[in-house]
Amino acid sequence: MTPSDPADKDVLARVATATNLREGAEGVATFLRAVKREGPAALNQIARAARLPVPVASALRRELETEGLLTRRGGVGLSEAGGRFVAETLGLGDALAPHCEACGGTGLAGPDARLVDRLSALLANAPKVDVTLDQAPCTAATALRRALLMLETGALEGRRILVLGDDDSVSLALCLVAEAAGLPPLPAPITVLEVDADWAAYLEAAAGEIGADLRVIRHDLREPLPADLRQAFDVIETDPPYTLEGARLFLARAAQALVPDTGTLGFLSFGAQAPAWQARLLAAVAEAGFAVTGLYPGFNRYQGAGLLGSTGQMLTLAGTGAADRPAGEDQTEAETSTPDAEARYAGPLYTFDVNPRARRYRCAGCGVVHSLGEDGVPATIEALKAGGCPACGATLFKRQSGDRG
Amino acid sequence: MTPSDPADKDVLARVATATNLREGAEGVATFLRAVKREGPAALNQIARAARLPVPVASALRRELETEGLLTRRGGVGLSEAGGRFVAETLGLGDALAPHCEACGGTGLAGPDARLVDRLSALLANAPKVDVTLDQAPCTAATALRRALLMLETGALEGRRILVLGDDDSVSLALCLVAEAAGLPPLPAPITVLEVDADWAAYLEAAAGEIGADLRVIRHDLREPLPADLRQAFDVIETDPPYTLEGARLFLARAAQALVPDTGTLGFLSFGAQAPAWQARLLAAVAEAGFAVTGLYPGFNRYQGAGLLGSTGQMLTLAGTGAADRPAGEDQTEAETSTPDAEARYAGPLYTFDVNPRARRYRCAGCGVVHSLGEDGVPATIEALKAGGCPACGATLFKRQSGDRG
Repeated sequence: MTPSDPADKDVLARVATATNLREGAEGVATFLRAVKREGPAALNQIARAARLPVPVASALRRELETEGLLTRRGGVGLSEAGGRFVAETLGLGDALAPHCEACGGTGLAGPDARLVDRLSALLANAPKVDVTLDQAPCTAATALRRALLMLETGALEGRRILVLGDDDSVSLALCLVAEAAGLPPLPAPITVLEVDADWAAYLEAAAGEIGADLRVIRHDLREPLPADLRQAFDVIETDPPYTLEGARLFLARAAQALVPDTGTLGFLSFGAQAPAWQARLLAAVAEAGFAVTGLYPGFNRYQGAGLLGSTGQMLTLAGTGAADRPAGEDQTEAETSTPDAEARYAGPLYTFDVNPRARRYRCAGCGVVHSLGEDGVPATIEALKAGGCPACGATLFKRQSGDRG
Repeated sequence: MTPSDPADKDVLARVATATNLREGAEGVATFLRAVKREGPAALNQIARAARLPVPVASALRRELETEGLLTRRGGVGLSEAGGRFVAETLGLGDALAPHCEACGGTGLAGPDARLVDRLSALLANAPKVDVTLDQAPCTAATALRRALLMLETGALEGRRILVLGDDDSVSLALCLVAEAAGLPPLPAPITVLEVDADWAAYLEAAAGEIGADLRVIRHDLREPLPADLRQAFDVIETDPPYTLEGARLFLARAAQALVPDTGTLGFLSFGAQAPAWQARLLAAVAEAGFAVTGLYPGFNRYQGAGLLGSTGQMLTLAGTGAADRPAGEDQTEAETSTPDAEARYAGPLYTFDVNPRARRYRCAGCGVVHSLGEDGVPATIEALKAGGCPACGATLFKRQSGDRG
């Protein structure tokens, strides 16, 4: 195929359409900017820089190769035509990104290597992740950076802290940081609500190992919050399933756990979102009674890359305090989808519930597309591989491109 | 007065009530945490660390001195009782804040000293600020940091950029950064809408001095956007009056100036807000069709400190693109206060319009309280001082404590 005309900006819209990209033509430009700055480089690195999930980045690469703008020499790189396109049509220069090298752009120093080593040793004993629960542990450095952010913003010292779901081991990171910082004892043990029995047992064992006072409660957040946990905390931390329903449910339970004063604090991690989806996430945050006070786009990194996005955003929240609304302000009318505080939530929650398309795999042997968890197909790709393709027995599968959890 | 009982957490609520603090008891704790970390230190420094306006911090200091928790030895510092209180009741340790020293917590390297010097030389020729227009220029370093953030997020190279109101000289900072980064020419000159004739003339002269291609248009944003500026830009930057009305009006005009695609970019600077007010600001952002993609609480610093707050937040925005909403999502119903795109906006706009209390001064001679701009009192404190107290002729005035713009 002939390389695209460098003056032809339509290629951006064409590629966006071909890959069904939520970010639109602008997202394609962002991807090319990342290649210009980082490339030639591995696809993972480009995906992280562009804040796109790896499968989406992979689909973009294929289309842009077809358009003649990218080559595979030494990783993902610009072709000659691609170089002309980004210079002449996108107007990109050779400027280095003015990212702070010392902190990787997070604005936070550390975590120091000794802490990373200690937490990594604990993480080594974590159970295998259960992808049907959207478990996707962050790196040790990320868990510690969250704990440092909480220390920095006054959310650790003297606080009663609740962690809602902790496949990220943030509770352990908080204990390590509190110890390293020589803090006085907290007014209450850090409390973790965790649905997964294996994970809860691991957290308890790890806390015992470092002599930390951790309270781990097995609890499914679809169930109403236990009475003794209501209005009992100053600070919440959560990295919920990356569905709008997940954010709504976890934040609704979190709001119930906090004392009703203004100025309670929240820490919400979530996958990078295209603008219109980001707007919905922020609306859910506001509905739950929180104001966003900080938002750090590339704050979180996860073990492995993949389905749920290679980096994720961190939002710091402040409870607005029902009694403290500005005069004349009506309470925002809750959407009907807001979880009921007193009832079990029975709606969709995990990626798999919300978007079954995100779990479609094509068999490399016979080409049949299987939807995990449907029509007798196992619920996880690991189980599908172990059992082989139900149609032909092959064990190699390819995730359907462009899908996103 | 007897020092407060260190175990008595009620002192926080008492001081919050006495100072009418929007942030509530939690805001008092934040202030004490700042004193613990930074003190003894000048009030300005404590105010910046606590993200509170200086007059508010001043009122807090007075009350906390009365409570026996603060002393004035060497600036604002904890008394012995205060030290016990923050350790025993608030549970604060001696941990240093894990702030990145290299970038001051912004995550951005630079700006380098040569650029700061060049911009400072231009700023030296800026006209006197007009406080009735809420003019409050940021520092040269802040203006450059905004330009670097725009470069970093792909909002400078190859972009058509509109600056709505530019008492911060961000347009000049963008020109300097583009030159320093060796960027190819932009597709259109950076365009500035500025209501103040003197300021517009200064920006034009400064651009001429550095040989930059700047288009400065005198325009009052209360008026509808000129037709040739509609749907003509990829990126907007603004630091509007710090009233909800100011944010709404400037963002409504900004949304009109942007092309209607998803992924257009916005940069909004605004004063630090208490949680419930922050929630209203974010609702205004969403209403205007933007999703917040980054929020950096202490990003902006201003020349002088004072009325409008010592530091300010930077919000990065992405246009959600009307055509790109998730399926089933209705357009948010606009509040009646949303400015009409085709009509002149005739409502309150500047701090002075919205909150006349923010401009009340007590004469040190006779004790009479004057409201600037009312009953024949001049509109600015400078003019009031120059003419003397209308009642007794004295020229020393004290701003009413706890007021906030």
